[in-house]
Amino acid sequence: MKSEAKPMLKTTETTAPLGALSPEDERRLDEMFAYVKEQAETFVGYPCRGRFDYSPLHRFLNYPINNVGDPFAPSTYRVHTREIELEVLAWFAELTHISAEQYWGYVTNGGTEGNIYGLFLARELYPSGMVYYSEDTHYSVAKNLRVLNMKHIMIKAQPNGEIDYDDLYETIRIHRDVPPIVFANVGTTMTEAVDDVTRIRRMLRELAIPESYIHCDAALCGMTLPFLDGAPEYDFRAGIDSISISGHKFIGSPIPCGVVLAKKRYVDRIARSIEYVGTLDTTLTGSRNGISPLVLWYAIRSRGADGFRREVAACVEKAKYAVRRLREIGMEAWRNPFAITVVFERPAPSVLQKWQIAVQRDRAHIITMQTISKEQIDELVSDIEAAREEVKA
Amino acid sequence: MKSEAKPMLKTTETTAPLGALSPEDERRLDEMFAYVKEQAETFVGYPCRGRFDYSPLHRFLNYPINNVGDPFAPSTYRVHTREIELEVLAWFAELTHISAEQYWGYVTNGGTEGNIYGLFLARELYPSGMVYYSEDTHYSVAKNLRVLNMKHIMIKAQPNGEIDYDDLYETIRIHRDVPPIVFANVGTTMTEAVDDVTRIRRMLRELAIPESYIHCDAALCGMTLPFLDGAPEYDFRAGIDSISISGHKFIGSPIPCGVVLAKKRYVDRIARSIEYVGTLDTTLTGSRNGISPLVLWYAIRSRGADGFRREVAACVEKAKYAVRRLREIGMEAWRNPFAITVVFERPAPSVLQKWQIAVQRDRAHIITMQTISKEQIDELVSDIEAAREEVKA
Repeated sequence: MKSEAKPMLKTTETTAPLGALSPEDERRLDEMFAYVKEQAETFVGYPCRGRFDYSPLHRFLNYPINNVGDPFAPSTYRVHTREIELEVLAWFAELTHISAEQYWGYVTNGGTEGNIYGLFLARELYPSGMVYYSEDTHYSVAKNLRVLNMKHIMIKAQPNGEIDYDDLYETIRIHRDVPPIVFANVGTTMTEAVDDVTRIRRMLRELAIPESYIHCDAALCGMTLPFLDGAPEYDFRAGIDSISISGHKFIGSPIPCGVVLAKKRYVDRIARSIEYVGTLDTTLTGSRNGISPLVLWYAIRSRGADGFRREVAACVEKAKYAVRRLREIGMEAWRNPFAITVVFERPAPSVLQKWQIAVQRDRAHIITMQTISKEQIDELVSDIEAAREEVKA
Repeated sequence: MKSEAKPMLKTTETTAPLGALSPEDERRLDEMFAYVKEQAETFVGYPCRGRFDYSPLHRFLNYPINNVGDPFAPSTYRVHTREIELEVLAWFAELTHISAEQYWGYVTNGGTEGNIYGLFLARELYPSGMVYYSEDTHYSVAKNLRVLNMKHIMIKAQPNGEIDYDDLYETIRIHRDVPPIVFANVGTTMTEAVDDVTRIRRMLRELAIPESYIHCDAALCGMTLPFLDGAPEYDFRAGIDSISISGHKFIGSPIPCGVVLAKKRYVDRIARSIEYVGTLDTTLTGSRNGISPLVLWYAIRSRGADGFRREVAACVEKAKYAVRRLREIGMEAWRNPFAITVVFERPAPSVLQKWQIAVQRDRAHIITMQTISKEQIDELVSDIEAAREEVKA
């Protein structure tokens, strides 16, 4: 694909009959599809499942489905899939250990929206609150905090990516006059490190802090840790107040999406009754797509907890394999406990380019999602080795 | 459809083979589809095209397309449709009269996101700014202002829904010490009234205000006014600074979406270079779906300006027809100039229910979109009449 866009002058009409693409545009669409398909083949650097098949849902794309507003409130806009959305939320509520009476939530456009929502709730509860988050937190969070106009302090991270608890403790201790709002990573983008929420909650108790809030960004691990024996508690059991989990990462979705869950009593405080759509406007976006809930529902119903458990186990297995293979060629490769993210030294640009690998300073990582094979790992390792030889030569 | 959700306990596994739905779930999905299809038949109360066919795009749903970050910046996440997105933006830039060097924008998840973005830009430029918007502004704007923590004053609206210019003038005059940020409706949700942007810009000049910002919410009319002869100027020609146009309204989309455009030099100020995804993080959402740009591109290329012009003309024709028919049965029905929204007295609840009509106090409206037929208008008018007779009897 060329990167330069051809302008589509509005005075330039197509020669095709109305409602159809011109042969040239048909070709462009085919090219775009071939491009997307090809890129998905060498896709090891992002925590997104690379392929899926939701074809039984395609028929829904012929209608203007809109789950406008609060999924729990009725709406006069009736072309919706709210019932399905509620089932998806119920499943995630059970997964994150919050009872049916206590939670509220909705299907979002992705992890960022869920994080903004959690922080927004925290700000509404504690307008003078101070947000604490580690330096290894996803870059979007700093932007969210700016959008929301919230005071914040960045906390040091440990070498593995986990928040530095001593720094967190000391910093909160100094600011005991303002309610702490802790943004916890479960896990971090770069190393999949999991902040210990139970320990943070205990810390807040030790400091005798009466008002506090913990939001958990469980974009990827919200779908892996529940299916791994012995994994740490990171959810409502551990004392969090809201959580954001991505749908387009481990589950896989053609449209970035996610789920945000929060304690219902917080949301009730910010609800605004709106006559126009006959619904409570408690979501951030208002108009919300009704396809993503169908995708999540379909994935949950067709794969089930057992399916996810098997998938997670296989991904962990491949992560271990990748660490071993990389070490065999002398790379410093490692992974956090329970992680499917393998961290290693930044390889040559040609390797980054070919495999769509994300980097941060001297670190690179791959995430051994379901659609990545051992053969791909072998090929990647060969490429890294070959690129190193080139540099030496 | 029952409104109560059946819980999906995670311990309840389906009996179907992994990756397939159980026969019961297949049935549920079919029921949900039948429900959506049926509801789309009696869909006259919302400004959304009721049916469309984007089947050539369905194949793209098998891949994790993500137009992460700024569409103008390259990204290492290469499963994307950014090139197509840029063409869509170029088309809208021409439509709203801003030159190629001057604009920036992206395809959003809908009008609300575009409005938040415009207001966010305004706030970053003028942190002490005061937002003015009419009382007939969509309810989501008040929520946006709360999320963004912006000072604001609601201005009176005229009976037709247009902002009260005298009130606006007087209010800005009193607050000349803070930069005004005007949120203009093009048009309003309830009556499709168009705030006169040219007049507002002139007003700001008359008051000798050195720093100001106008954001234009052209959710629906951004796709109708450009195709109507003699329609008022509402875009960058008229002196706006940013604009939000919906994609799922006049154009029609299975996924709520839209376009936000702003002056590039404003956006440059808030850009943050982020190594992680190798892109500039100037959007609100970060991860962005790559399907919506395809939908908009497909619509633009297959229908073209001529196609849209014909569609708008037909919708206006039907709006005139609806006004006439409603008046014939003694209803006070009317429409604003150039509008495809027909406003009338709030009918009986049975009518609202059947036709999914949105109301505000004593007013109701229908929007004569492409998919609404004269036969449906006749049927609606009969229903209104019948329901009135019932009340009298």
